[in-house]
Amino acid sequence: MNKFWFQETHTEGYEVKWKIRDVLHSEKSKYQDLAIIDTIEWGKALVLDGALQVSEKDEFIYHEMIVHVAMHSHPNPENVLIIGGGDGGTLREVVKHNCLKSVDMVEIDDRVIEVSKQYLPSISSAYNDPRLRLYVEDGIKFVENSKEQYDIVIVDSSDPVGPAIQLFSQAFYRDVFAALDDDGLLTVQSESPLFYQDTFKSVYNNINAVFPAAYVYTAAIPTYVSGLWSFSMGSKDCDPRQIVSDREIINGLKYYNEAIHEAAFSLPPFIKEMLK
Amino acid sequence: MNKFWFQETHTEGYEVKWKIRDVLHSEKSKYQDLAIIDTIEWGKALVLDGALQVSEKDEFIYHEMIVHVAMHSHPNPENVLIIGGGDGGTLREVVKHNCLKSVDMVEIDDRVIEVSKQYLPSISSAYNDPRLRLYVEDGIKFVENSKEQYDIVIVDSSDPVGPAIQLFSQAFYRDVFAALDDDGLLTVQSESPLFYQDTFKSVYNNINAVFPAAYVYTAAIPTYVSGLWSFSMGSKDCDPRQIVSDREIINGLKYYNEAIHEAAFSLPPFIKEMLK
Repeated sequence: MNKFWFQETHTEGYEVKWKIRDVLHSEKSKYQDLAIIDTIEWGKALVLDGALQVSEKDEFIYHEMIVHVAMHSHPNPENVLIIGGGDGGTLREVVKHNCLKSVDMVEIDDRVIEVSKQYLPSISSAYNDPRLRLYVEDGIKFVENSKEQYDIVIVDSSDPVGPAIQLFSQAFYRDVFAALDDDGLLTVQSESPLFYQDTFKSVYNNINAVFPAAYVYTAAIPTYVSGLWSFSMGSKDCDPRQIVSDREIINGLKYYNEAIHEAAFSLPPFIKEMLK
Repeated sequence: MNKFWFQETHTEGYEVKWKIRDVLHSEKSKYQDLAIIDTIEWGKALVLDGALQVSEKDEFIYHEMIVHVAMHSHPNPENVLIIGGGDGGTLREVVKHNCLKSVDMVEIDDRVIEVSKQYLPSISSAYNDPRLRLYVEDGIKFVENSKEQYDIVIVDSSDPVGPAIQLFSQAFYRDVFAALDDDGLLTVQSESPLFYQDTFKSVYNNINAVFPAAYVYTAAIPTYVSGLWSFSMGSKDCDPRQIVSDREIINGLKYYNEAIHEAAFSLPPFIKEMLK
C-alpha cells in the first residue's frame, strides 16, 4: 500500500499533506529546490523550495484569473510581458487572445521551464507560440533595462522569499510603470489576505504609491493556503473592473467569465479594512 | 516545546494539520465525538467526529453568508427556522435583523449547545435572545410535524454522514417546502464543489426538484476543505440574487456586504457545468 506524502508547512501552526504516487523528478537548480510530484488528488504538481506552485487539477483557476482580467479590460492588449511563470500556464492563457502581437516572458530559472515542458505538458503547451520571446534572466533587471512599452505586465511570481522577494517592492513597480504604455496595466499575484496579510497589504500599498489607481480582486484557489487568493493591479488609465465593451470573451474557460470578472473585485469588509 | 496537532483527513489523499495548544474538552455525546481544541492559527474550534466545524477566526464568513443572503433578499423575514447550528453562530447572525419576530432553532445534540456556550462565547452569544425558541430534537421530524409557516429555513448541518445525512434528501426538502410561506426561502450549506461534487450536485438537484427555482452561491472559507464553499437555495417566489430595495444592510459585518451578496451568485463555468 502506497504511503508517500508531500507535506507543506504554511505557518508554524498549519500544514497540509498530499498523498503522492511518486516523486517524478527532484533536483537542486541554481536558484531553488525543484520537484515534480504525482499526487492522488490534484494530478501532477510543481514544487519549489517545498511550496506547491501549480497542480494540474486546479491550475486553471490561478492562470485564467491572473491573465484574463487584465486582457479583457485593457482597450487593446497587443504587447504583454510576463515576469516569472516558468511552468507556462500564464503564457498559455495569454496566447489565447487573438489581439496579441507579442509576448515577452522572463523566467530566471530555465530548469523550471525545462522540467515543466517535460512533466506538465498541459500547462507548458504554449512555448512554441511564434509571438513568444523567451528570456532566461532576472526579471528585475530585465524591467529596469527595458526599452519596450508594454500594454500589460503580469508578475507570476512565487512567494516573497528567495529570488522572488524584489518582485514585491515599490522600486520594481516603478520600473514596471516606466515600461508600460499610457493605458498600461500591471497584474501581480499578491498572496492570501488571510495568511499573508503583511505581504498583501504591502503589495497593494506599493502599487498604489506608484500607479494612479490600484485594485484588488480575489479567486478561490484550493491548493494555495486558505483557498482565498488575491491579485493586485496597477492602472495608468483604464478601470480594470470593466470589461471593454467590444472585447470578445475567450471561449472554453473553466473559471473566468464576464460575471466572475466583475464579481472578483467585490471585496468583503475585512479585506477592504486592510486596504485603508 | 508544544508538539500537539489536530489532524483532519479530508480524503484518502488530502489531510490538514492544525497545531494546538491544548484539547480543552473531549466527550462522546449520544450522537457524535465532540471536542473543543485551542489552535495556534484559528483560535478555539469545535470538532465533531474528527471534522472541524467552526473556528473563532474564520467562522464569521460561514455564518454571515449562510444567514444574510436570505435575510436581505426575502421581502419580510419575520419568522425563521434554523436546523442544526448548535454552536450558535447562525443564530447570532439571524437575531441581528430587527425585522425578526421569532426564530425557532432545532439542534439534535444538546451537548453541542452546552459545550459551545462554555467554550465559544463569541459564537454562542445569542442563546438568550427573547425571540428564540430552542428545540433539542431531530430536525427532520420537527419539520415533518411542523404546523408553522416560516419565511426562511436555514439548514446549518455538518457533512452528510451520520445524523446529518437525511438533511440532504429530497424528502426533507419537500417537508421544508411545506413549512415555508408563499414567498419562503430555504438556504443550506452544500459542501465544496471541488471535493464533494456528488453531494453538491445532489443537493442542488434535490432542491431544484422541489422548489420552483434553485440557486447556488459561494464563499471562501479557509478552514473548510478546498476553501471554496457552496450554499444552495430554494425559492418559492423571490429572486435571492437581488437585495430587497428598502432593506437596511446590517452594519459591522466582516464578510457580507451588498457587493458580496450579488457577486457570490456569479459562478465559474466549471461549477455551472455541474449544475446542468
